[in-house]
Amino acid sequence: VTADCKRNLPRVAVVGATGYAGAELVRILAGHPKVQLACLTSRQHVGVDFADIYPAMKNVVAHKCLAYDPEILADKADIVFIALPHKLPMQFVPQLLAKGLKVIDLSADFRFRNVEAYVQAYQQHTCPDLLQEAVYGLSEIYADRIGKARLVGNPGCYPTSILLPLIPVVRKGWVDLQTLVADSKSGVSGAGATATPTTHYCRVNESFKAYKVAAHRHQPEITEVLVREAGCEVKLTFVPHLIPMTRGMESTIYADLTEPVDEQQVIECLRETYGSDGFVRICGNRPPDTLDVRGTIYCDIGVVVDDRNNKLILMSAIDNLVKGAAGQAVQNMNLMLGLEPPAGLENPPFPV
Amino acid sequence: VTADCKRNLPRVAVVGATGYAGAELVRILAGHPKVQLACLTSRQHVGVDFADIYPAMKNVVAHKCLAYDPEILADKADIVFIALPHKLPMQFVPQLLAKGLKVIDLSADFRFRNVEAYVQAYQQHTCPDLLQEAVYGLSEIYADRIGKARLVGNPGCYPTSILLPLIPVVRKGWVDLQTLVADSKSGVSGAGATATPTTHYCRVNESFKAYKVAAHRHQPEITEVLVREAGCEVKLTFVPHLIPMTRGMESTIYADLTEPVDEQQVIECLRETYGSDGFVRICGNRPPDTLDVRGTIYCDIGVVVDDRNNKLILMSAIDNLVKGAAGQAVQNMNLMLGLEPPAGLENPPFPV
Amino acid sequence: VTADCKRNLPRVAVVGATGYAGAELVRILAGHPKVQLACLTSRQHVGVDFADIYPAMKNVVAHKCLAYDPEILADKADIVFIALPHKLPMQFVPQLLAKGLKVIDLSADFRFRNVEAYVQAYQQHTCPDLLQEAVYGLSEIYADRIGKARLVGNPGCYPTSILLPLIPVVRKGWVDLQTLVADSKSGVSGAGATATPTTHYCRVNESFKAYKVAAHRHQPEITEVLVREAGCEVKLTFVPHLIPMTRGMESTIYADLTEPVDEQQVIECLRETYGSDGFVRICGNRPPDTLDVRGTIYCDIGVVVDDRNNKLILMSAIDNLVKGAAGQAVQNMNLMLGLEPPAGLENPPFPV
Amino acid sequence: VTADCKRNLPRVAVVGATGYAGAELVRILAGHPKVQLACLTSRQHVGVDFADIYPAMKNVVAHKCLAYDPEILADKADIVFIALPHKLPMQFVPQLLAKGLKVIDLSADFRFRNVEAYVQAYQQHTCPDLLQEAVYGLSEIYADRIGKARLVGNPGCYPTSILLPLIPVVRKGWVDLQTLVADSKSGVSGAGATATPTTHYCRVNESFKAYKVAAHRHQPEITEVLVREAGCEVKLTFVPHLIPMTRGMESTIYADLTEPVDEQQVIECLRETYGSDGFVRICGNRPPDTLDVRGTIYCDIGVVVDDRNNKLILMSAIDNLVKGAAGQAVQNMNLMLGLEPPAGLENPPFPV
Repeated sequence: VTADCKRNLPRVAVVGATGYAGAELVRILAGHPKVQLACLTSRQHVGVDFADIYPAMKNVVAHKCLAYDPEILADKADIVFIALPHKLPMQFVPQLLAKGLKVIDLSADFRFRNVEAYVQAYQQHTCPDLLQEAVYGLSEIYADRIGKARLVGNPGCYPTSILLPLIPVVRKGWVDLQTLVADSKSGVSGAGATATPTTHYCRVNESFKAYKVAAHRHQPEITEVLVREAGCEVKLTFVPHLIPMTRGMESTIYADLTEPVDEQQVIECLRETYGSDGFVRICGNRPPDTLDVRGTIYCDIGVVVDDRNNKLILMSAIDNLVKGAAGQAVQNMNLMLGLEPPAGLENPPFPV
Repeated sequence: VTADCKRNLPRVAVVGATGYAGAELVRILAGHPKVQLACLTSRQHVGVDFADIYPAMKNVVAHKCLAYDPEILADKADIVFIALPHKLPMQFVPQLLAKGLKVIDLSADFRFRNVEAYVQAYQQHTCPDLLQEAVYGLSEIYADRIGKARLVGNPGCYPTSILLPLIPVVRKGWVDLQTLVADSKSGVSGAGATATPTTHYCRVNESFKAYKVAAHRHQPEITEVLVREAGCEVKLTFVPHLIPMTRGMESTIYADLTEPVDEQQVIECLRETYGSDGFVRICGNRPPDTLDVRGTIYCDIGVVVDDRNNKLILMSAIDNLVKGAAGQAVQNMNLMLGLEPPAGLENPPFPV
Repeated sequence: VTADCKRNLPRVAVVGATGYAGAELVRILAGHPKVQLACLTSRQHVGVDFADIYPAMKNVVAHKCLAYDPEILADKADIVFIALPHKLPMQFVPQLLAKGLKVIDLSADFRFRNVEAYVQAYQQHTCPDLLQEAVYGLSEIYADRIGKARLVGNPGCYPTSILLPLIPVVRKGWVDLQTLVADSKSGVSGAGATATPTTHYCRVNESFKAYKVAAHRHQPEITEVLVREAGCEVKLTFVPHLIPMTRGMESTIYADLTEPVDEQQVIECLRETYGSDGFVRICGNRPPDTLDVRGTIYCDIGVVVDDRNNKLILMSAIDNLVKGAAGQAVQNMNLMLGLEPPAGLENPPFPV
Repeated sequence: VTADCKRNLPRVAVVGATGYAGAELVRILAGHPKVQLACLTSRQHVGVDFADIYPAMKNVVAHKCLAYDPEILADKADIVFIALPHKLPMQFVPQLLAKGLKVIDLSADFRFRNVEAYVQAYQQHTCPDLLQEAVYGLSEIYADRIGKARLVGNPGCYPTSILLPLIPVVRKGWVDLQTLVADSKSGVSGAGATATPTTHYCRVNESFKAYKVAAHRHQPEITEVLVREAGCEVKLTFVPHLIPMTRGMESTIYADLTEPVDEQQVIECLRETYGSDGFVRICGNRPPDTLDVRGTIYCDIGVVVDDRNNKLILMSAIDNLVKGAAGQAVQNMNLMLGLEPPAGLENPPFPV
């Protein structure tokens, strides 16, 4: 698709394009047939060619990184992705909305409806009223509301991987919400592009460990959604771990069954919710593998019931940068712009 | 230590020396100052230099692989390690014992006391009477009995990583044994040295997935020990996963607390059980990291209490080939021969 | 692109679809907007869903694997890719051509023009006459002839990575062809999908070594092309190495300069040959990185002149499965079918 | 070996103990039976427990990091290892020698005899007179002089991996010193412990690339030694590359033969130089593998002669942190203190 053919397509901007979520947005949008990539901003690399930061993008993305400027964004774009650390988006979003732009924010700033929960997990919120308007961008679950939104709070990677398998069975009332355990594992790209001791190759390679045990800020995000879905209190113990790999996230979720449901019923329930040709692929009782979703928008889900112990075990695999961040953001953009759901997200997965 | 100085030391044999557990035994025993490596056997590589199978061992191990022959073993060795797939050891052990040899078996064949549990998980047992005599080789927990044993059933890697953190709190009665979840993760060496689609580099690299979900044969092994320790029924849901790395095993264990115990009390309980200078290192509430135990006999344990949910979270990290197999077997040998516990197991860990 | 819209597009078949090169062809062709994937064959997996072999392809590729049958291929396809081990293609190609099919063979069987060279490196050739007709599918260099071919011998991965940087400077006469050294490194997918001790994760991880030193069969393939280009004898010492990664190939090539040429002149020469918007990206004196070409058709080339020693150093990076195999095969198909060169090959690269 | 038994052993200090070379020194010295680890210094972590920086060392190393203080070093130690960036050691060494300490410096500061070469590659030298006294610590080659030295300049990792295979054939006069090419590859630990974009896991994983092409500062170090050995000018083109692994270095070295020498003669020549039971293991024409030397002091060397092209190909594999840095430094210490050569360096290698 040449620049020329794209002249009349919706124009999109990426704010914070040089972090991993931002760069992944650039990748997906550069190959998207139904929008044009209008401009990129970066705090650290103003004036630098994007392809100098990510040499993979030589000959693919010709943009220079701009400084953040709402006037320029309003002039050049119809819809804006914000891929900045939380706290910055809440400063920028009101003015962007005021200029008539649609906004998809990938930080935590617009994921919560309950401002106290946000404040407790993060910090003060400077535009709490927008929390009521913002739509939680879990694409398959809230597609209708996302389609009508002008502001979407794009879900966290862990919440996406945990909520997609859980919500259908929670809606059925099949699981005891006082017994939830989510043991999740993430590739290193989830820690962001900044070089830190945690992301040093020699500290990650051949290393596996938990972190922020029962103290990760995605826990209240997940809980808020589940409480809304279930209409009752929820006890979720959530432990994230770091895997020595670049991309990929697996969650294994444990819950006591409230009634004698078997594997097949759960599988059917998930298939009914997600259909047979969408981005959520139900794998039966086969455990999903991060390798099979690498670089894709897919969320693969497997189901096992441990009959001896009356435990339902749900397993999901996503690419934390795609379904867990940039890909789902583009999926939400497609909904907001009325495009075909798979537009720009159809690259077949790699066999290895 | 030259061969000469070793002339009067106890003589050890490794049966099945070319699998990963066997080769790791060879590594440890080759550097052990208080025993002499007497002979090695291999089914596949009879007559071949061990160092041709593992070129790392050139100039270190001069042995050729022999065929299995109980006469030769009785003639050359005082104590025999068996590192063969289950079912073979039960055929060999009676004759080795009859010849006066001590035996440490790394398979599942002598880990169970309850023959029905073994039969259900594995297959028929041809010498069930020996199950009553065999001692379960969880070194720190059963040191006294191991010291007097002539036959030790060396624990599985997952059971070691789960039982060491759990047993002290189970003995205290602090956890509800109906609510146990163990989410474990293993490096690929646990799958053995045989080339299979599962161990192909391109299928493992950048892959993370569960396997044998709630159906792994280490589950009944763990349960049998816990039932014995607790004196009551136990419900444990156990899900193993494969990590893209060679060595290392992490278990994150979840249990409801039966009384208001805090993190510090659990940490103290573990410190009391394991002491401050042994091979089980209590890390407080810091999650243990497989990188820190790589190539070592250590089991690192971390503790977090999720107060909101009344959940105790125990995390352990071991090297699956060392503390999870060959290293613990040598630790048991030291007990059986009355050697210093750390003999041959003291190589300092690698910083990276 | 739905199956329906594709009804009138050229129909392609992949013979040997379940090896890595075959599966990569399936990936690329499944996303190709201008052809339809007509059928797949597999020797090992007849009757099995392709997506059961590569679960990544669930919901993407619905084909079952067929047995090889030239009648069916002639009936269903217009052009056939063969991704089988050498020796099989030479048995199949004559009949496929006779039935009017175009053929792109990814084995070595049709890469040589000199049958003696083939026989020496591989074995007897059963249709040597076809060697004169077959076109060597180095896309950028032989585009015109490829466009008119009915049979293309798709280049090896190492030859592609070495010839693309070398041919332009060889044509200029700038390098002493008696002094060539190519030190190449390949990811493990180059060893194929079969599980062998060589591809066992634990033998590859943290391992780097040379193999087939000055004895690899790609050496005569490279030499034949260079001799043809240069019109004189060529001495090339070629040493391949194995890198612990799935995809990627780097070649560092050393040659004495025959005249005082500087870095900039070499860079310009390469830019003239390959243009500024094709798939060969000239990186100046920046060393190319396999990460930047992963999953893409790009060949990145860097140039350094070691003035002290009068040495030209050329470095290239490709994805061995894409530009080194399946991607270049599709590039050749596009030429043979008169499609736009980038059709089906435009997925933007991943930032990480 | 308990602290008590070590009371009368030589006392060693490590200056710069928290970088990777320093930490590796601590690892080796902590397990060394014939010296006692007296004190550690660190610029960044004064007052911090070493085991808090490297949790692997919990229960193994009880030292706190001290500030650098020559008085304390002279009081506590007999021999000092310096593992600091170049430029700092030249400031410290004169005062340490003046206090009667022996010094092994792991930086480049005392590797050169020719001060101009040092100045050109690094910077001004503040104690050039010491360059004449300092002994280049290539242990196998200069053992006699090292044994009598009070100051050793420990070789760089690349020079070690290139000089050990080359020197014996250079001494024989078998290779044309105008034709040397060394294509080397290093694991990431060679880049040090500091977190930088270059060492970020996601930039290293699945990445392979050259760096400092024909411009690395180890090139003049190698050349100076070769010139000294050969007594004539040397042209060496040296290109280092980064491998996605933690430890390990492979060098493939190409040279024209000056006379018709065959593989076996070169192999014999190397065996004569290095013996059959030392740390340099001659592998015949089998390419050495970094996996086989991981964590060990071994240098494995393989030899192939490419007859067609009259090229000698030498390949070496070392662990860059052991034989390439800390291990060779301890080997030198053993020589300087008159200890058995393998003392503290005998841990058997890991099979995987």
